[in-house]
Amino acid sequence: MSEQAPVQTSTRLDRLHTALESGTLQQARRMLNALHPGEIAHLLESLPLAQRDIVWGLVSEENDGEVLILVADEVRADLISRMDREELLAATEGLDTDDLADLIQELPQAITQEILDSLDHQRRERLEAVLPYAEDTAGGLMNPDTITVRPEVTLDVVMRYLRHLKEKIPPQTDILMVVNRDGKYLGVLPLTVLVTHALDETVAEVMSLDVRGIPAGWDDGKVANRFEQHDLISAPVVDEDGRLIGRITIDDVVDVIREEGEHQFMGHAGLSEDEDMFAPVLISTRRRALWLGINLLTALLASWVIGNFEATIEKVVALAVLMPIVASMGGIAGSQTLTLTIRGIALGQLSSKNTRWLILKELAVGSLNSLIWAAVVAVIAGFWFQDVNIGLLIATAMCINLIVASLVGTVLPMALEKIGIDPALAGSVLLTTVTDIVGFLSFLGLATLFLI
Amino acid sequence: MSEQAPVQTSTRLDRLHTALESGTLQQARRMLNALHPGEIAHLLESLPLAQRDIVWGLVSEENDGEVLILVADEVRADLISRMDREELLAATEGLDTDDLADLIQELPQAITQEILDSLDHQRRERLEAVLPYAEDTAGGLMNPDTITVRPEVTLDVVMRYLRHLKEKIPPQTDILMVVNRDGKYLGVLPLTVLVTHALDETVAEVMSLDVRGIPAGWDDGKVANRFEQHDLISAPVVDEDGRLIGRITIDDVVDVIREEGEHQFMGHAGLSEDEDMFAPVLISTRRRALWLGINLLTALLASWVIGNFEATIEKVVALAVLMPIVASMGGIAGSQTLTLTIRGIALGQLSSKNTRWLILKELAVGSLNSLIWAAVVAVIAGFWFQDVNIGLLIATAMCINLIVASLVGTVLPMALEKIGIDPALAGSVLLTTVTDIVGFLSFLGLATLFLI
Repeated sequence: MSEQAPVQTSTRLDRLHTALESGTLQQARRMLNALHPGEIAHLLESLPLAQRDIVWGLVSEENDGEVLILVADEVRADLISRMDREELLAATEGLDTDDLADLIQELPQAITQEILDSLDHQRRERLEAVLPYAEDTAGGLMNPDTITVRPEVTLDVVMRYLRHLKEKIPPQTDILMVVNRDGKYLGVLPLTVLVTHALDETVAEVMSLDVRGIPAGWDDGKVANRFEQHDLISAPVVDEDGRLIGRITIDDVVDVIREEGEHQFMGHAGLSEDEDMFAPVLISTRRRALWLGINLLTALLASWVIGNFEATIEKVVALAVLMPIVASMGGIAGSQTLTLTIRGIALGQLSSKNTRWLILKELAVGSLNSLIWAAVVAVIAGFWFQDVNIGLLIATAMCINLIVASLVGTVLPMALEKIGIDPALAGSVLLTTVTDIVGFLSFLGLATLFLI
Repeated sequence: MSEQAPVQTSTRLDRLHTALESGTLQQARRMLNALHPGEIAHLLESLPLAQRDIVWGLVSEENDGEVLILVADEVRADLISRMDREELLAATEGLDTDDLADLIQELPQAITQEILDSLDHQRRERLEAVLPYAEDTAGGLMNPDTITVRPEVTLDVVMRYLRHLKEKIPPQTDILMVVNRDGKYLGVLPLTVLVTHALDETVAEVMSLDVRGIPAGWDDGKVANRFEQHDLISAPVVDEDGRLIGRITIDDVVDVIREEGEHQFMGHAGLSEDEDMFAPVLISTRRRALWLGINLLTALLASWVIGNFEATIEKVVALAVLMPIVASMGGIAGSQTLTLTIRGIALGQLSSKNTRWLILKELAVGSLNSLIWAAVVAVIAGFWFQDVNIGLLIATAMCINLIVASLVGTVLPMALEKIGIDPALAGSVLLTTVTDIVGFLSFLGLATLFLI
């Protein structure tokens, strides 16, 4: 039982480092390949490039494929680029069909063909059934290796069939799929039901109708919601005619959920959820440069707005001192609303029936908060510059900006979603462009009108 | 099979709306209670308060408890506040022990005691075994309702035991736990192994030793990583002596992963992952006001920095026009680094061995990008204001700010994590404070030194 002591990945990483540094490659190799492929993937993701290269060389051939499937997209591309033809062919052996389908699309064309040619007829047919579906649909997530049973057979027959399959039962099998003669999906036979009923009962008598087939075209976010709401471990995927074509397992759904969360979080900073923390400096620089460039454009736009009021600022320098407050408060208020709305969209909580309600609510929250903080800022600015008018001015501008920010924060992501632009990626940069411009324009514009 | 047509939640929501609006409450009630509790929870989260109240009243008593467990924390508190004693007592009946443990902590003290008193001895004992663990630990996630078997019995005995349990087998049971006479955890017997081996074999002969016990004190993020890396559906939880005290199932782990992602995403805007989109205006206002207030303080700090250079700005108004660019670009570059580091921490990818590498890498990326964009900005600013010096000035200030931003974006979240402050919540506001101040200070400071 001493093996059960909690071993943190970082400790393992440290130990592996020590093994690598002290030069005992054999020991490092043994330690490494004793890990679960998921843990090896995690280790590789946590290693700077040079060390990743060494460690990847130590991973045994039978683990290669599994590990490739499990690492983040960018790390995978990096690892694949370092493998030769033989290694790639060896790595794809023994993979699940859905995993093979995902991996095959990222390999060089020549090798893809070679792999397809090397498969036996049945496996090739299964693979070709999965390939047409986009990776982010139910069809792309599914694995065709389902165990099916007929409704009219007895549980005894099912048990004998399973004993015959033995090691071929795919992992994460909690239910068997019940299909009719035409391959139409009828229901599921959970293993827990199988082991708790008399062997002379038929599948039809004990099968469950609660699990509905998932259409192959569903997008993966919707599949994830279905799994979460029904606490599923695996679920059948059906074609348009209701025929069973595969199943989705919870491990792939967990990846979808993890990536959805990371996509939102990373997206607001213009990063991809697949971003490799240890990517080479030049690659990271190029990728981030784009986002900085876009933001530079919006910052220049804001500066151009300010530039139109040079004469005003020259007369009242206090305006230059205070103007960032108006822009920044609008940005914060807007980004709160934006964040809430983006999450609502991702969770499928927004529909035509409640958006109007949400917009009105956010407008109310924005207005109330603008009143509170405008009052505070008015007092501070008034005392600071000994000028009541400046206080009134910044208060008015802040109210305008916060209310606009609340409106844009709600409407913008819904509009982006509708025209097919990802709000998690484009939302925050567009929002701050608006709040910067409205902030500077209202503050300096009002000042020009009333102060000078 | 027509039941299998993909029904989107929003469509359901619309239909329910129609049923509610046309006043056929009976029909709405039937439609509602035909849904899975997870779907009811999702519907409630998607409804404005007044409608939520009506719909909650339509949910049948036997669904109440399950739904309460599944809604977001804030929505739950809202729903509980509208229930009376009898309703709450009825709702807690028939819940899993881990769910009951989570729910009971949010109920009024008087009712908690009443529920504890109403439980039979065994259930009460089980509940009291779970209660001491914090909600975000393995102990808090676990359910004590495990099915255990002894290593020396035959599979035939196990099968008879399961048939005896029948409906009492808890959901998401894919493995039985093997324990010795003292309750020590030894290994697992997967159902797939049980159904594929001869009935006269013993548990010891076929059980798997691959699944290690999870210590009850592990935090939930670590449990989630373990589940993901090992593709687990359920896993045993053990105490310090290696005794089995419960099991964790994937549905609870999925919630942890979902919440972890939302926590990071919502946290950067100062929101809680439990934020109820349809919370009353006053509650939302108060909650957001705090974040706006904190940000106002940092904005005032930045203004104070600018205020020290009033004389400089008065002489060269172009500085006021350009200064937001320097601050904003620093904020963007810093937030990219910050986001990447926060994710690395959450995924457990950072250890003492690779942080130095990461800091150096981010510094290199920040420096390169600062050179690229400083050059661009220098040219634009130089032509705009027909002044080479202004171009050189803004380029220098931008380089300083972007390099500082890269350093702070990496070091700050690690430092916050070390002293126990949540970087997902505090990171972004602290970072922009630094980039604003450094941006304004370097730009206006250099201008004062060299331009005037």
